Amino acid sequence: MKQNVLSKLGQRTAVPPISWLMHAALSRPKLISLAAGFTDNSTLPVEISRKLLNEILRSPKTGQPALQYGITAGENNLRALTAKHLQKLDGGHDLAHSPERVLITGGSQQLLYMTLEALCDEGDIILVEDPTYFVFLSILQSRGIKARGVKLERDGIDLAHLEKVLERLKKSGELRRVKALYLITYFQNPTGATTSLAKKSAALNLLKKFERAAGHPIYLLEDAAYRELSFPGRADLPVSRAEQQIRPTTPPTALTLPGARDRVIYTGTYSKPYAPGARVGFGILPEPLFTTVQRIKGNHDFGTANLLQQLLARALETGLYDKHVAKVQKNYARKARVMKSALAENFPPSVEIWESGGGLYFWARLPKGISAGVKSKVFQSALKADVLYVPGELCYADDPSRAKPDNELRISFGSANEENIRKGIARLGKVLKKFI
Amino acid sequence: MKQNVLSKLGQRTAVPPISWLMHAALSRPKLISLAAGFTDNSTLPVEISRKLLNEILRSPKTGQPALQYGITAGENNLRALTAKHLQKLDGGHDLAHSPERVLITGGSQQLLYMTLEALCDEGDIILVEDPTYFVFLSILQSRGIKARGVKLERDGIDLAHLEKVLERLKKSGELRRVKALYLITYFQNPTGATTSLAKKSAALNLLKKFERAAGHPIYLLEDAAYRELSFPGRADLPVSRAEQQIRPTTPPTALTLPGARDRVIYTGTYSKPYAPGARVGFGILPEPLFTTVQRIKGNHDFGTANLLQQLLARALETGLYDKHVAKVQKNYARKARVMKSALAENFPPSVEIWESGGGLYFWARLPKGISAGVKSKVFQSALKADVLYVPGELCYADDPSRAKPDNELRISFGSANEENIRKGIARLGKVLKKFI
Repeated sequence: MKQNVLSKLGQRTAVPPISWLMHAALSRPKLISLAAGFTDNSTLPVEISRKLLNEILRSPKTGQPALQYGITAGENNLRALTAKHLQKLDGGHDLAHSPERVLITGGSQQLLYMTLEALCDEGDIILVEDPTYFVFLSILQSRGIKARGVKLERDGIDLAHLEKVLERLKKSGELRRVKALYLITYFQNPTGATTSLAKKSAALNLLKKFERAAGHPIYLLEDAAYRELSFPGRADLPVSRAEQQIRPTTPPTALTLPGARDRVIYTGTYSKPYAPGARVGFGILPEPLFTTVQRIKGNHDFGTANLLQQLLARALETGLYDKHVAKVQKNYARKARVMKSALAENFPPSVEIWESGGGLYFWARLPKGISAGVKSKVFQSALKADVLYVPGELCYADDPSRAKPDNELRISFGSANEENIRKGIARLGKVLKKFI
Repeated sequence: MKQNVLSKLGQRTAVPPISWLMHAALSRPKLISLAAGFTDNSTLPVEISRKLLNEILRSPKTGQPALQYGITAGENNLRALTAKHLQKLDGGHDLAHSPERVLITGGSQQLLYMTLEALCDEGDIILVEDPTYFVFLSILQSRGIKARGVKLERDGIDLAHLEKVLERLKKSGELRRVKALYLITYFQNPTGATTSLAKKSAALNLLKKFERAAGHPIYLLEDAAYRELSFPGRADLPVSRAEQQIRPTTPPTALTLPGARDRVIYTGTYSKPYAPGARVGFGILPEPLFTTVQRIKGNHDFGTANLLQQLLARALETGLYDKHVAKVQKNYARKARVMKSALAENFPPSVEIWESGGGLYFWARLPKGISAGVKSKVFQSALKADVLYVPGELCYADDPSRAKPDNELRISFGSANEENIRKGIARLGKVLKKFI
């Protein structure tokens, strides 16, 4: 009995970094968590869902298919409604959004997982924003896929750095291992940054430029999980004035760019804007990925639970989805403004704050040399003061070409109510003032 | 552009063998499908689910958690109810069924997938029943895992053959690649066979005997997907007398055996007995597998949709689940008896029929030399006669140590109604009589 019975994947799959944060939270009942990426309980569509499920299950004609097996790629009505929904978000653009390219999944997380299964062997490389979504990094780590970071600016990745990274990989002979560039293009997790269409376009062109040397396509993997959580007012204005602003439009997806049809993988979700507990995500994939991922999905679960798919389809059809999202957006915008005021009031002025036009997060950068990492005095003191944030260092890939910054914090206004946002930021400000 | 951009897994993941069967079905509107493993639309719990979802979503107190994120391993109430449910099925046995060992998944299929991820590298070996569940074979194939078949008898695998296979693998130095023996222990897919407890026990002991040479545990992976679809009457009796029989108990799981706690992986599902469209499965796993699979689940989807988990929890709590299952069992028992009569009336007597005390399938073996395979005259003629079955050859692993039998048929009474069962078997019998 000397050998480990687990697979390499099994052995590599690590404790999720977030799990002990959650554990810490559970053991301190008075703790205010500004860490979780949970959505706000108070805006969950409880009554809407009840009404819609009643309609679906009132007759066997709609009720039976909702409780039966379906098609692996997803219910055709939801696929069509999803394509239409994306067309609307992209201002009517319809070239890349046809229903037969839509795959329905158990949240966009599952689609990210299966896409990596379809694309990457152990030792392959995915380019990621620096910092990026930490669960994505966990998937890469568990599958033995290497991540290489590309510097992130407030309007998306640093294009010069992307080119430099690609050049370096070309020189080292590793370009053939590069399968995709992963971008969280709307209200990014963790920084809140939104990628401009110009940057998406330039990035796509750069990837194409290096394809010949790679010997295969290099995909742009666009994760739009937070896309619909845009603020109807502008978060950079005082509360009173912000209410009067019209809703800003978010940039179109990379799918709308010329040549995108064969090179852009788009993942989205109804989980964040509607309900994580009725988890339905979706994606648009180019061939040969669509077919491959669909087959992988067949091996995972033969398709996402029909009852949830029918619920989302009916929410979209009846317009209740849009109404609900408008309400959610208002709520987050208000909470973001509350957090913004609290940050201005309580944080030392030397802390750099990134604010966003949507999503669930603020990003704070402490002066150089002051660590906010998991083992830092700042983090431990915050925990003692009963306030929790996500240390930014968890969002950086293991990339040997640079040290991980550890002076940043992801602060979420997703699940806390307004009172707790104020209290939490006040506690955190007090802690920071001790060390800055 | 010479290299394939897909991973090895992506390239290996094949068209599911069943998909073109389904395609064939769609293109022939008058076709009677005795192929699908679908459950019966007429017994789906439409009204029960409506009632329970109403209760859950009537108040924010229960409604909000149902629509929010949960815990990766599953909701604690459902884990506890599942442990209790399994204890009841196992006659009160509680040694191996504690809630903290229960993992909730998106159907048992997802658990099988993740268990293989946790256990097997490319080139590893899983022992399977010969024949076995074809989607399990698809997973093995896509992941580069080898399958080795163990002969199946009416009461489970042939133990002498299991020992022979293990000896052979020991001699060839491949035993260290063997990670598990996969058994579908109740009303097996495709044959309907149920494994006796004595055989489970003997198999577990045999695996233990070879562990030293393997250098690691060899697990017994018990798939109990059809367990609750047992017939309340006896299918081997005429309809009138069968109704009077008391409900037979199915054998306990391998979990109840001494030493099982560290060696048995159990997978079950609420999908078949309750509703595939509200897909919830579960498993009981020994360490280090539980922790590893839980983490993998975190990377897949952070846990199964809470709304579905709450629905199943409430169904179990209120007793409506048990009532529903009793109804489903009666329905399948009746349909099985209808199919049995039709088989006796229409099939040539030289066709060997395996009948079962539960599940969804009959297994038919044609005289040697007569193929019922995908390309056979029998299958093509059946299709022309508008009746579809699953060719048994699809259920055999690619095992170089024997040729695949091709003279068998899986015939399902799951989704067809009584009239179509009679018609379908009559059509199939007519076809068979042409060739036998």
